[in-house]
Amino acid sequence: MSTREERTLARIALTWLAEPGTRSVARLVDRLGSVAALDLLLDGRAPDEKLRASIAARSADGDPRAVAYDAMARTDRLGARIVTPEDAEWPPGLADLRELRLPGAYRKVDTETAPPLCFWVRGSWPLAEALDRSVAVVGARAATGYGTHIATELGYGLGDRGWTVVSGGAFGIDAAAHRGALTAGGLTVAVLACGLDRPYPMGNAALFDRIADTGLLVSEWMPGAEPLRPRFLIRNRVIAAGTVGTVVVEASARSGATQTGHRALAMPRPTMAVPGPVTSAMSVGTHELLRDYPKARLVTGVAHVLEEVGRIGDDLAPPARGPDRPTDALDDDARSVLEAMPRRGGVGVERLAARAGVDVRTTLRKLSLLEELTLVVRRDDGYALVSTPRPRRATT
Amino acid sequence: MSTREERTLARIALTWLAEPGTRSVARLVDRLGSVAALDLLLDGRAPDEKLRASIAARSADGDPRAVAYDAMARTDRLGARIVTPEDAEWPPGLADLRELRLPGAYRKVDTETAPPLCFWVRGSWPLAEALDRSVAVVGARAATGYGTHIATELGYGLGDRGWTVVSGGAFGIDAAAHRGALTAGGLTVAVLACGLDRPYPMGNAALFDRIADTGLLVSEWMPGAEPLRPRFLIRNRVIAAGTVGTVVVEASARSGATQTGHRALAMPRPTMAVPGPVTSAMSVGTHELLRDYPKARLVTGVAHVLEEVGRIGDDLAPPARGPDRPTDALDDDARSVLEAMPRRGGVGVERLAARAGVDVRTTLRKLSLLEELTLVVRRDDGYALVSTPRPRRATT
Repeated sequence: MSTREERTLARIALTWLAEPGTRSVARLVDRLGSVAALDLLLDGRAPDEKLRASIAARSADGDPRAVAYDAMARTDRLGARIVTPEDAEWPPGLADLRELRLPGAYRKVDTETAPPLCFWVRGSWPLAEALDRSVAVVGARAATGYGTHIATELGYGLGDRGWTVVSGGAFGIDAAAHRGALTAGGLTVAVLACGLDRPYPMGNAALFDRIADTGLLVSEWMPGAEPLRPRFLIRNRVIAAGTVGTVVVEASARSGATQTGHRALAMPRPTMAVPGPVTSAMSVGTHELLRDYPKARLVTGVAHVLEEVGRIGDDLAPPARGPDRPTDALDDDARSVLEAMPRRGGVGVERLAARAGVDVRTTLRKLSLLEELTLVVRRDDGYALVSTPRPRRATT
Repeated sequence: MSTREERTLARIALTWLAEPGTRSVARLVDRLGSVAALDLLLDGRAPDEKLRASIAARSADGDPRAVAYDAMARTDRLGARIVTPEDAEWPPGLADLRELRLPGAYRKVDTETAPPLCFWVRGSWPLAEALDRSVAVVGARAATGYGTHIATELGYGLGDRGWTVVSGGAFGIDAAAHRGALTAGGLTVAVLACGLDRPYPMGNAALFDRIADTGLLVSEWMPGAEPLRPRFLIRNRVIAAGTVGTVVVEASARSGATQTGHRALAMPRPTMAVPGPVTSAMSVGTHELLRDYPKARLVTGVAHVLEEVGRIGDDLAPPARGPDRPTDALDDDARSVLEAMPRRGGVGVERLAARAGVDVRTTLRKLSLLEELTLVVRRDDGYALVSTPRPRRATT
């Protein structure tokens, strides 16, 4: 029987030997446990050639167990912790990744969709608790002022209503969402694609420290791991699977943010996109999501987001509508009478009835109503409009 | 047996006695013909009290046949013509209005959905021919610079590709769509809610003259008729039913333009909306259309519009995508090798293979490929990246 430390050590070693998300490794761990899976792989008995080659190449770089042991020590020195499925704080939603089948263009990276083997976590909240009521807010690094504004507002609105904001650690939308949540005193979680001791980008180092103070920094990669480009895409599945829903704020046509959106759709989780000017390259990705996937929902603010992810009866968006107008309550006849009023001067009841196409008795009744609403007045020369600054005639 | 002139005269009189679109009148005309329907109504035998009252009120204002006769003379003087369902140029699509049932909020105005009894038309194109390949471009009067730009582009793009643009005559989106079509030398049709001799708004009078020169001015109301507010909503059904599809460019939450969108959806006709900044009140209506009606399609430009209304195989939108990158053609191994390259300095093949998690032989093969693509170079200290201005690491 292995000890808990041995099992954790094996998970770390496996994560190092093959990139996180590798399906064949996850299947071995499911079947044999992490310790036996590691033994088998180091024995050269990996189930496929590609994995065998990858393990041989990495092993040439160091003894996997020694590397894992070193990573554990380094984790302690960082004030971070390692979280595995054996821990109570392991997020249950990640299990859904096991069944994930990506559509069309993303089938190629299907092998990257297995659940993580372990996480490195910095911050005091239990991970599962932080993610229980959480929304991913993701988007472009090269965000516009518009996108940054929206992401900040969403981060603030979610944080203010007790929802956790989850994002990557990039400039642009990611950072704006975190900042918004922090400003609201909300909980925010940054899921990184490198070691927790390697703030990337460096320019966000102070932001990461603020996040770790009140929220969480999370990574599937051990301390020291570099932010290699494919890792961001592998990381994105955690953002999509670990949250209740995902909002894409701004994204170019082919980008990591739309990929996160696709993964959230495939989970499936509520997947939302914020529209923007069609003249903006940074909204091409969100518009394509909305066009290509009927399940992707257009959202314009935090109320719409809560409508998608909220528990029934909890969070509801008010219907969008114009300002109330006194004429809203009028029936068709009253409206016809009102519209038939001359713009200047008074008018007699019969003449008005003819213009309105309403009989005289009804016209008189409706005129009383309109008087009560102070829309018309009775004068010497007949009935006249009470002048208002609002133009009476609408086109479109 | 009535003459054609008598039948047309009766249609004009009926249009004047009850506002266009009144269902009970349309049903009588269908059953009895226009002459007998007029006789019956003037005899006080209208099928409902409301219509009876309306006819009595209007009749008090003048003899309906004399009014109609006068309207015919006025039409001639204007250089306009009257078009009825007896004419070859009557647009066939309008017949769909007969079956139109509006959803929810619009059920109240259900009585306004019968097909027109006749049109006043100014311009030389046959009406049906002009509308055969047509798209309605509608939206807010108080359009933003963004909306005006988009409407102009759509008008231009449609006109340029041989599609007729149809809109109202309002400031803002309507005028911009017409101007765009005119600039492209395209055909454009303005459907007015008042007499053709009463340009409304006056500020668009010169635009209306330009439209009449090469396109068409159309109205259901006789010369002299005022642009009363309810008429714009009644008019909108003609824009929705007379075209192949409708695009809403900018619209506030409760507006004539969203009403036209609802009517197009109910027809049903392809119904499209252009998104915009969620911070803009002028995009609230288009976003609500897209949120509330799964059949409303998000479009970002003329290519998307043609995809919705185009004959199969005729007009297709190219897929949105980012710029081609040399790394697009790389397989997973080549990409892993490339990503594992140090940012500065050279690296040996074995070290690189270990970092990439790819076996040495494959690494060598992929390095040859990367050399060919001038992404890496072989140097004294091993392989090195060819420096490019493009950042190597992407987040999000």
